[in-house]
Amino acid sequence: MTHQKLRERVCRVNRSLGRSGLVLLTWGNVSGVDRASGVFAIKPSGVPYDELRPEAVVVVELDSGDTVDAAGRPSSDAPTHRALYLSFPEVGGIVHTHSEFATAWAQAAQPIPCLGTTHADGFAGRIPITRNLRATEIEDAYEWHTGMVVAEYFDDHEIDPGATPGVLLPHHGPFTWGVDPESALEHAVVLEAVARMAWYSRVLAPGGPEAPECLARKHFARKHGPNAYYGQK
Amino acid sequence: MTHQKLRERVCRVNRSLGRSGLVLLTWGNVSGVDRASGVFAIKPSGVPYDELRPEAVVVVELDSGDTVDAAGRPSSDAPTHRALYLSFPEVGGIVHTHSEFATAWAQAAQPIPCLGTTHADGFAGRIPITRNLRATEIEDAYEWHTGMVVAEYFDDHEIDPGATPGVLLPHHGPFTWGVDPESALEHAVVLEAVARMAWYSRVLAPGGPEAPECLARKHFARKHGPNAYYGQK
Amino acid sequence: MTHQKLRERVCRVNRSLGRSGLVLLTWGNVSGVDRASGVFAIKPSGVPYDELRPEAVVVVELDSGDTVDAAGRPSSDAPTHRALYLSFPEVGGIVHTHSEFATAWAQAAQPIPCLGTTHADGFAGRIPITRNLRATEIEDAYEWHTGMVVAEYFDDHEIDPGATPGVLLPHHGPFTWGVDPESALEHAVVLEAVARMAWYSRVLAPGGPEAPECLARKHFARKHGPNAYYGQK
Amino acid sequence: MTHQKLRERVCRVNRSLGRSGLVLLTWGNVSGVDRASGVFAIKPSGVPYDELRPEAVVVVELDSGDTVDAAGRPSSDAPTHRALYLSFPEVGGIVHTHSEFATAWAQAAQPIPCLGTTHADGFAGRIPITRNLRATEIEDAYEWHTGMVVAEYFDDHEIDPGATPGVLLPHHGPFTWGVDPESALEHAVVLEAVARMAWYSRVLAPGGPEAPECLARKHFARKHGPNAYYGQK
Repeated sequence: MTHQKLRERVCRVNRSLGRSGLVLLTWGNVSGVDRASGVFAIKPSGVPYDELRPEAVVVVELDSGDTVDAAGRPSSDAPTHRALYLSFPEVGGIVHTHSEFATAWAQAAQPIPCLGTTHADGFAGRIPITRNLRATEIEDAYEWHTGMVVAEYFDDHEIDPGATPGVLLPHHGPFTWGVDPESALEHAVVLEAVARMAWYSRVLAPGGPEAPECLARKHFARKHGPNAYYGQK
Repeated sequence: MTHQKLRERVCRVNRSLGRSGLVLLTWGNVSGVDRASGVFAIKPSGVPYDELRPEAVVVVELDSGDTVDAAGRPSSDAPTHRALYLSFPEVGGIVHTHSEFATAWAQAAQPIPCLGTTHADGFAGRIPITRNLRATEIEDAYEWHTGMVVAEYFDDHEIDPGATPGVLLPHHGPFTWGVDPESALEHAVVLEAVARMAWYSRVLAPGGPEAPECLARKHFARKHGPNAYYGQK
Repeated sequence: MTHQKLRERVCRVNRSLGRSGLVLLTWGNVSGVDRASGVFAIKPSGVPYDELRPEAVVVVELDSGDTVDAAGRPSSDAPTHRALYLSFPEVGGIVHTHSEFATAWAQAAQPIPCLGTTHADGFAGRIPITRNLRATEIEDAYEWHTGMVVAEYFDDHEIDPGATPGVLLPHHGPFTWGVDPESALEHAVVLEAVARMAWYSRVLAPGGPEAPECLARKHFARKHGPNAYYGQK
Repeated sequence: MTHQKLRERVCRVNRSLGRSGLVLLTWGNVSGVDRASGVFAIKPSGVPYDELRPEAVVVVELDSGDTVDAAGRPSSDAPTHRALYLSFPEVGGIVHTHSEFATAWAQAAQPIPCLGTTHADGFAGRIPITRNLRATEIEDAYEWHTGMVVAEYFDDHEIDPGATPGVLLPHHGPFTWGVDPESALEHAVVLEAVARMAWYSRVLAPGGPEAPECLARKHFARKHGPNAYYGQK
């Protein structure tokens, strides 16, 4: 079996996703990329997380989108992952879920405002939401366009995907990414927690204040900036 | 004991229902039908799920509504199940619960709008709510009329019960169905998840937008349409 | 040790309360009465549920309110229980909690409206809320007055405590009762579930419709009326 | 290893915090002070709770803020703890979390009103929220100023930190304290429960009534006053 290590890693993080509380049934998937080999590996479609084995993980060529040495079909969202890998060259792993509060914001067609330090510790600024896809983009190559509309948004608004490692698709749900599949999953966990707290805050105080920008900048910087002092390294 | 296999299956799915998080105490029931034999099997009334055994499952004749070879009373909702089996010939299993968010919508007397792809993956269009029963329908054969008002709604609005496998009864709760008891239970799980996310969305953004119809149609089709490409088959 | 059986039973139901999800820390208590002996037994104050042993359960005389053969102090709410036992002669067990949604309604100073069959299956009509206690009633014999204001409300409004086995104290929380401690606990579980669903419904649809009275009456009757047909007896 | 007992205790309570449901990932920390030795001990930054060992707990000098005999970096919030220990001489332990409902109120920039006896049993009056830090306070010695703004608030409003053992920082989250680390953690648990119930109440009834002052005073006094009669001592 080719790409054994990548399959094992992607299998392991998909199984973690299954235990994370972010997914119900099979509503979510993790992928990881090996840029040197020009492939990414992704969950097969519709397979329960706790039954997933490395040999069932599907390997896809970045360039062509073709599956390689596959025992089954990749996640139907595989073209979205591919579009994101091609658009964001520093991304090493991607997670998609329908986690409850992130989906609530997506279904309300609203970005998640930065209301406090919990958010600012993980995301620089609000968590954006893309435009709706056009009917023609849905009818043909829907999943590919789902990824491209994310890239378009980050490009148009000059957002750094390294500092804002997630996005909402309107009426759908969140995608997150990171330097590897593990960090993409941690960002999915953080995004859901941030979405939940922002929801609680805004339902209590509709139109309430966002976090002061200097506070948000400070928290992001102390954890992720050049002089970060959070953690042990 | 007659109908041994059907009783075992209905017992097993009722026990799954008990562990699903959808029911408190004994507030829910599963049935399954054997159309060749002209009977359905259903949970006995008021029995805890984890004490349920196949021999306690009650078998009911579809035509007459009479119990067959019964050790106890069927669920008080048995006539509702019977009305649905007689009205919807392709249904093989039925689940009734008082799951929290589905019941919240039912108690608010509102259908569940289709706000996103999570919903559209499982239900074609909104999850409908029937009219209130009339006082005379409640006083006499209440549970039978509960089923018939569902059939009336689907008939009047030309809704396909195969594509919309569930409904809300106002001020009561949800019924779901499927080709067999297992799929009826999965639809109950999905309906509750969809009800919860729609609740979160609408409380955040009252009167917010429904999912674009082309997006909803696409998601239902990619999972259930003639050219479905979700899953491994 | 006197009243051994009563202590064991009250100990057991207090321990069940501790596992019910209705209490945090030591915020709740169960009692049971033995009317033939003229005593009730109640949880000692401040003791963790899973450390509770029958010999620590406190026995109190109904007539005098004095403790009998006690190893420690009774719950500070013991005079409330005593007032309810003396006012409601058919009650055999009482439960007090600060369960979250029941307390939310109590803190909002609103009764719980009957919005559906889940409620009507357990309570005939809305779950009432008493008046606020007067400052003088709080300063002197506060816990006794807490029980008496419940009795006053049921008397003034001619409510049958057998058909409405619970109440809210404004800015405090719920008390429930039953023919024995076990049924009082089941009513506490049902009250919380009903409070939660009513909260979800009303937050979604403020001022939304209550359940039609004929539907509510039907459901209460099919479970508790003279011709009840729910369950196996 | 110096300060062995203090490290062990602080380690143990941090591990309890990890199991409390109040923290996600590493979003919270516990410290304890030894005033005789002039030091406090605190969780190291970014270490998972269940991997924490006493020798990794960081000891900090109260006077200088310097770490003593440390294997790693203290929590980035250590200067906040130090400012609180220096300002509140009777405090023996401090807990910081981003617990969901406390953070929701903090993000809404609102104090938690005292709506009932659950609140009044643990906190005398509302749970205050400080002013926002100024940009200059954030840019330089941010964490120290976070503690000082709490001390300023309690001083300006003449609030006794012994009777109000917690506070919200706007757009951030709660800090709680107590006579020792264990009681600081219990106050964090109570604050979150109180925040949740107040949230439920206010979302149901925006602008609803606070608890009558005589009721709140009575409940705090029966548990914490000179003639307290709650519990077994």
